[in-house]
Amino acid sequence: MPTEASRKVPVPALERLATYHRHLLDLEQERVATISSVELEEQTGIPAAQFRKDLSYFGDFGKPGVGYAVPELRAAIGRILHVHEERCVLLVGAGNLGAALVGYPGLKEQRFRLVAVFDNNYAKIGRRLWDMEILDVARIREINETHRAGIGIVAVPRQAAQGAADALIDAGVRAILNFAPATLKVPPGVLVRNVSFVQELAVLSHHLASAGDAAGGPDDV
Amino acid sequence: MPTEASRKVPVPALERLATYHRHLLDLEQERVATISSVELEEQTGIPAAQFRKDLSYFGDFGKPGVGYAVPELRAAIGRILHVHEERCVLLVGAGNLGAALVGYPGLKEQRFRLVAVFDNNYAKIGRRLWDMEILDVARIREINETHRAGIGIVAVPRQAAQGAADALIDAGVRAILNFAPATLKVPPGVLVRNVSFVQELAVLSHHLASAGDAAGGPDDV
Repeated sequence: MPTEASRKVPVPALERLATYHRHLLDLEQERVATISSVELEEQTGIPAAQFRKDLSYFGDFGKPGVGYAVPELRAAIGRILHVHEERCVLLVGAGNLGAALVGYPGLKEQRFRLVAVFDNNYAKIGRRLWDMEILDVARIREINETHRAGIGIVAVPRQAAQGAADALIDAGVRAILNFAPATLKVPPGVLVRNVSFVQELAVLSHHLASAGDAAGGPDDV
Repeated sequence: MPTEASRKVPVPALERLATYHRHLLDLEQERVATISSVELEEQTGIPAAQFRKDLSYFGDFGKPGVGYAVPELRAAIGRILHVHEERCVLLVGAGNLGAALVGYPGLKEQRFRLVAVFDNNYAKIGRRLWDMEILDVARIREINETHRAGIGIVAVPRQAAQGAADALIDAGVRAILNFAPATLKVPPGVLVRNVSFVQELAVLSHHLASAGDAAGGPDDV
């Protein structure tokens, strides 16, 4: 049997596992001891059968009639996602979005640690973004010799996005979260996940159109 | 044959269509007249065969040996996505993420118009976020009687997210883009798309683990 870390889990299953993990962290904080798959369905919207199937892939969890022990389940999913140990993350782009990311409490909760923030704008370099000094992106490789971060975030305008990705990859990053509306070219072995607000809005826009919202208003649900 | 607006397009196809649309806008600005599916593959990373399949669903586009006329193709995809007319959008949450969204040039490019920004923090209400006045979320229904926006963005902390969604739905919104790490409960007919940084980072983290990055560094590609 392959180890949890080496096994390739399909991306949709990973996304659901991350949702369970986040929710279980909340339950742990609320000192909930056990939870059933039906309760999880009510709370996360993911069907109980799907949840059981996602977990069965990794081994035997839960007890019939009792449910799942929250801390154990959270820890097990954390190991599958490899978020049980702290991950260092580099950020390129010290604009509004960068500020939102540095200040986002969810990162620390999930053991992602933003270790350095870079920009190529001399008006920003040397200033602070929250408690972090904004560094020259030209120093990214040198800085990452210490941190050895494997994850990088691209939060720059479209025209600067490929350059930011190239710099991250040159510094040793192998996984990129891209917020720029640009298609990044990366070598094999580097994974890019794109977060596109506009793409999401287009999906929502089509939903409204196909639901025939033209007649819609506050009162007709 | 159903009309373009009424037809239900699968979400992954919509996401690709939004990617083509964004890329074609760039090409139009660069005054590129025609493009082949192979060129589009090189530029967007989406296979040419997939592109042709996505389009064939909606009718006959392009000419063999010539390719696709960029402005016509962009306009056709815009109609499918229903982004050919301006869409009004409400934003709840005037924090860092809200500021990033209000300042994001991609929204206007794609004809999404942020018409009002709300918050429930009295220290923020009445102040400005860029050129917009921050309004009391208690006024959301009244304000949206004028705009009749169908799309809302939730950019508030987790514990305020359900309240923000309820207020948006009460004001007539039927499509929500949720940035909060919370599972929103919404009535039938309301579509929620979740943007989770942490979920994306967990997927990247698993990729690093399964690629065995422990030995990784700037020099071993």
